Amino acid sequence: MSERFCFSVKARDGAARLGEIATPRGIVRTPAFMTVGTGATVKAMFPEDVKASGADIILANTYHLMLRPGAERIARLGGLHQFMHWSGPILTDSGGYQVMSLAKLRKIDEEGVTFQSHVDGATVALSPERAVEVQCLLGSDIQMVLDECTAYPATREEAKASLDLSLRWARRCKVAFAAMSKPGQALFGIVQGSVYPDLRVRCAYDLIDIGFDGYAVGGLAVGEGQGAMLEMVETTTAVLPEDKPRYLMGVGTPEDLLASIARGIDMFDCVLPTRSGRHCQAFTWQGKLNLRNARYAEDQTPLDPESKCPAAQYERAYLHHLVRSGEALGAMLLTYNNVQFYQELMARAREAIAQGRFATFADDVKRRYAATGDDD
Amino acid sequence: MSERFCFSVKARDGAARLGEIATPRGIVRTPAFMTVGTGATVKAMFPEDVKASGADIILANTYHLMLRPGAERIARLGGLHQFMHWSGPILTDSGGYQVMSLAKLRKIDEEGVTFQSHVDGATVALSPERAVEVQCLLGSDIQMVLDECTAYPATREEAKASLDLSLRWARRCKVAFAAMSKPGQALFGIVQGSVYPDLRVRCAYDLIDIGFDGYAVGGLAVGEGQGAMLEMVETTTAVLPEDKPRYLMGVGTPEDLLASIARGIDMFDCVLPTRSGRHCQAFTWQGKLNLRNARYAEDQTPLDPESKCPAAQYERAYLHHLVRSGEALGAMLLTYNNVQFYQELMARAREAIAQGRFATFADDVKRRYAATGDDD
Repeated sequence: MSERFCFSVKARDGAARLGEIATPRGIVRTPAFMTVGTGATVKAMFPEDVKASGADIILANTYHLMLRPGAERIARLGGLHQFMHWSGPILTDSGGYQVMSLAKLRKIDEEGVTFQSHVDGATVALSPERAVEVQCLLGSDIQMVLDECTAYPATREEAKASLDLSLRWARRCKVAFAAMSKPGQALFGIVQGSVYPDLRVRCAYDLIDIGFDGYAVGGLAVGEGQGAMLEMVETTTAVLPEDKPRYLMGVGTPEDLLASIARGIDMFDCVLPTRSGRHCQAFTWQGKLNLRNARYAEDQTPLDPESKCPAAQYERAYLHHLVRSGEALGAMLLTYNNVQFYQELMARAREAIAQGRFATFADDVKRRYAATGDDD
Repeated sequence: MSERFCFSVKARDGAARLGEIATPRGIVRTPAFMTVGTGATVKAMFPEDVKASGADIILANTYHLMLRPGAERIARLGGLHQFMHWSGPILTDSGGYQVMSLAKLRKIDEEGVTFQSHVDGATVALSPERAVEVQCLLGSDIQMVLDECTAYPATREEAKASLDLSLRWARRCKVAFAAMSKPGQALFGIVQGSVYPDLRVRCAYDLIDIGFDGYAVGGLAVGEGQGAMLEMVETTTAVLPEDKPRYLMGVGTPEDLLASIARGIDMFDCVLPTRSGRHCQAFTWQGKLNLRNARYAEDQTPLDPESKCPAAQYERAYLHHLVRSGEALGAMLLTYNNVQFYQELMARAREAIAQGRFATFADDVKRRYAATGDDD
């Protein structure tokens, strides 16, 4: 355990990095995938199974938790870690992204955003200062600045205006964080700039000037396509400091993750493994399977013979029956399998970087995923 | 492990019996509560947690499984135990009760019942012979005869006619079972007779004449009230053989179970613990709690400090949050807690019988359950 937040790169393979984030709540091995625990639970999983899957860190959503059960209530109950039975590090987003995607009647101005709660209809205000306060009440180990996730598509002018607002908010978050945070907590800045390389670079430099414990690449995987996404990632990581972790927000498929690691990304989060698990999809070392497919009705192969996950040992025929019958156990097993697959993917990626064969490893996974023919 | 099915009474306390059913798949300690695994899964529970809860035996529903995924398919896949990851004994009902409660366009005659599948609308026939065949295909350890669960209320004449049909079907089941079953499998008869003591007694004697490995009391907990139910139980167990297990079908609350054990019942099944777990209800040693209740919003007491169940160690405030948010983990934890509470209840009942203090124990539980004020 480290008393403060620090990051070190242990090995490099091209632009891919093997590293370690030390926090007072434990080590995060990078590249790291953060399973999403939106409402103080990784949906349909016991916390001990999240840990057993190999996860060092999880993500929780500020927007959901501030509305229900409320940040002040979680603080009174001893903080988010105790509340949700997770003793390792937790990263929280700022709430801004969900305000844009989930809340009604939202209004954005210099001060922040106001919106109507999707839980009880109450009007809620979220400013940069309140976003930091809420994350401190939750007791989050890695906090994110409040930003405006630029809509896609956006003109250069729209993207620039949005980015400028996000930078002003980032400065206010840093001031609030200095006043409210505890030793060992970290605050990450978020690079915006839509698909404009020069805006991405300018935003990154401005954030570096302000100074953060890590840097996220935000506003991607919103419809721009994998090519444009990877171009923005590469452009951005090229100017980010070598000694800070880099986090690509909301991404993605196994192929996306490996392609981004190859461009210098260290951290990811995405609902894909958990949400897919609730929709009959399994990520396996044989590719992605749709367990609703009739071809599995009498398939006695284990879900993923190559995985060490307990859930991957169940026969496909049984899982097919469970998902066809709408049984909760189907979602429980597929979620567990998927969460662990993503952790195994990161573990193998780290091993490949350490051994200088990351490109070969990434090609192999890409081939496995290209070969599977199950429809979504 | 026993190579054949046999039952022995180890101790008595009044009419309450401590016993053991030996089967080729393991011992069932009685009094036993059978958790219901309708569609080849105890809803929202991992099979290993069902085992860890203390369960020796579970129940599966013939009606559901014959419709989906189909008995022949389960047989091809190695039988129900392998299919659903449960290596201990399984009792299956005959399907008759669910045909009456779930199927549409059912028609009943001397031959059996025909009905429309609720899964795909297909017309399905279920005769006494087919009910046994399906249970043999599943590989069930304890099978139930096909009977007509007499509707409530029923006139004496209706009850008698229904009972006579059930007896003719019971004879046919016994013949079919002799032809199709494997060594060590058991077949139970079912006593019907509505709320007419003389019909119950006559039915019991006729079933004993035919000869079964155990005797169930059916057609109760259908609206007759606890007083009438217990009267029928007492009337029936008084004439059932001492050396065979007695099973009260579809019952019930903790108070129902203890009152029936006091009247000589050895086995139970009921959806109450699992269904309640999916509807925010917790059975605990402090009584029944409704976790939706606002009183639990900041209650940091463990769900049930007296229980050894891992799920019972979670704080009520967290469970309140989960059920209010509709999170799957809420149903998972409450189901696990309830399933284990029922097993702990049976374990304590067995201990109390062994120590000759069953009445005191039952009174204590009754008082705990009377004292709790949570609404459903």
